[in-house]
Amino acid sequence: MATPAKVTKTEGKNNHDAADEQADKEQQEAIEQIDEVQNEIDRLNEQASEEILKVEQKYNKLRQPFFKKRSDLIAKIPNFWVTAFVNHPQVSALLTEDDEEALQFLTKVEVQEFDDIKSGYTINFCFDSNPYFDNEVISKEFHLNDTGEPSSKSTTIKWKEGKDLTKKPTAAQKGKKRSHDDQESFFCWFSDHADAGADELGEVIKDDIWPNPLQYYLASEIDEETGAGDED
Amino acid sequence: MATPAKVTKTEGKNNHDAADEQADKEQQEAIEQIDEVQNEIDRLNEQASEEILKVEQKYNKLRQPFFKKRSDLIAKIPNFWVTAFVNHPQVSALLTEDDEEALQFLTKVEVQEFDDIKSGYTINFCFDSNPYFDNEVISKEFHLNDTGEPSSKSTTIKWKEGKDLTKKPTAAQKGKKRSHDDQESFFCWFSDHADAGADELGEVIKDDIWPNPLQYYLASEIDEETGAGDED
Ligand SMILES: [Ca+2]
Ligand SMILES: [Ca+2]
Ligand SMILES: [Mg+2]
Ligand SMILES: [Mg+2]
Repeated sequence: MATPAKVTKTEGKNNHDAADEQADKEQQEAIEQIDEVQNEIDRLNEQASEEILKVEQKYNKLRQPFFKKRSDLIAKIPNFWVTAFVNHPQVSALLTEDDEEALQFLTKVEVQEFDDIKSGYTINFCFDSNPYFDNEVISKEFHLNDTGEPSSKSTTIKWKEGKDLTKKPTAAQKGKKRSHDDQESFFCWFSDHADAGADELGEVIKDDIWPNPLQYYLASEIDEETGAGDED
Repeated sequence: MATPAKVTKTEGKNNHDAADEQADKEQQEAIEQIDEVQNEIDRLNEQASEEILKVEQKYNKLRQPFFKKRSDLIAKIPNFWVTAFVNHPQVSALLTEDDEEALQFLTKVEVQEFDDIKSGYTINFCFDSNPYFDNEVISKEFHLNDTGEPSSKSTTIKWKEGKDLTKKPTAAQKGKKRSHDDQESFFCWFSDHADAGADELGEVIKDDIWPNPLQYYLASEIDEETGAGDED
């Protein structure tokens, strides 16, 4: 931060007389007063933030019954979530064929922001019983602690024997099952806590899919119906 | 958006029987109901945005008298603004030596957000009479129209004869005044409307300097005092 700022202060006078002293003192007082005014402004900014947070919390509560109702309706539609994910450009890119198979058992996705909103959120993935793992719910939680340090943690997935999609296939298996198979499984995301502060998939689900999953589900519906062109 | 979503719908049955018809109908109804719930959620989101905007507007008003008071105090400190600019890493990089000379006549900077906040802001630069131009105020205004299209416009600077800092020096002048002089003047920013939607300097002034200019002014004070080490 070494800058040529000095040039703006000295004005070519070399002797520091009484008038200069007086001017210096007045400027110093002005600086102190600016600092006080700034404290008032900062206080107002904090009050504004708190008030905005309260509004967000209020609407978060008001939205809950609608999210509940939406989840109940979504549960009536087979493969709703896997279809929404497959139709989401960013998420789709993260899914292997095996992931898509496993995600057909995903019956409910829930995003829960913590009460104070600022400190984090949890995403719950609820599954029907399935041939891949024993969990009924797999969650990933994103947390900011008091000093703003991000962290994340997840449910440990209880894979069934030989079904762990996060394990790279062995050379022998690879031989059997030739495919474009260097891609990591979507399920690796649950044990990846390196980007807790800016988890791309977490934020896509929270900020893009969760606010309106139907639009992604329907993107496929449209493709299907115009593509197949059978009934009306 | 062509995706392999179809795979998730068909389940290996080829004949479309009465039970399938019934299931299709129920799913279609569920989709319509999700759409209705989604409309309710969207309405709540709009209400939340409006309420938050009202809070922001309220505090914008409450801050005004403090900004006014701060401006009056800043006016008592010679070279406050040029010092703050010179001490701001990003802004400093945009200033030529001539710019710094001209900005010593800058007595007031004002950021005014439009009443509805979302539609834009104006930055006013007020100058003492000076050897460079005749304007007392030079403004740049950033505006988003109803469709979200950004635009900006500025006061035309009335340069005094031979003082236009935005004119590249001629070869002859360059010969006389040898310097690192391919840098464009800060004042070119006023006639640059190419990046109205994401004007970097405009946003630095609005979001970084304006909220607390004293911190940048004081950055130089500290340098000076530790550097010179004269009085206490
Ligand atoms: Ca269909
Ligand atoms: Ca000093
Ligand atoms: Mg489906
Ligand atoms: Mg100064």
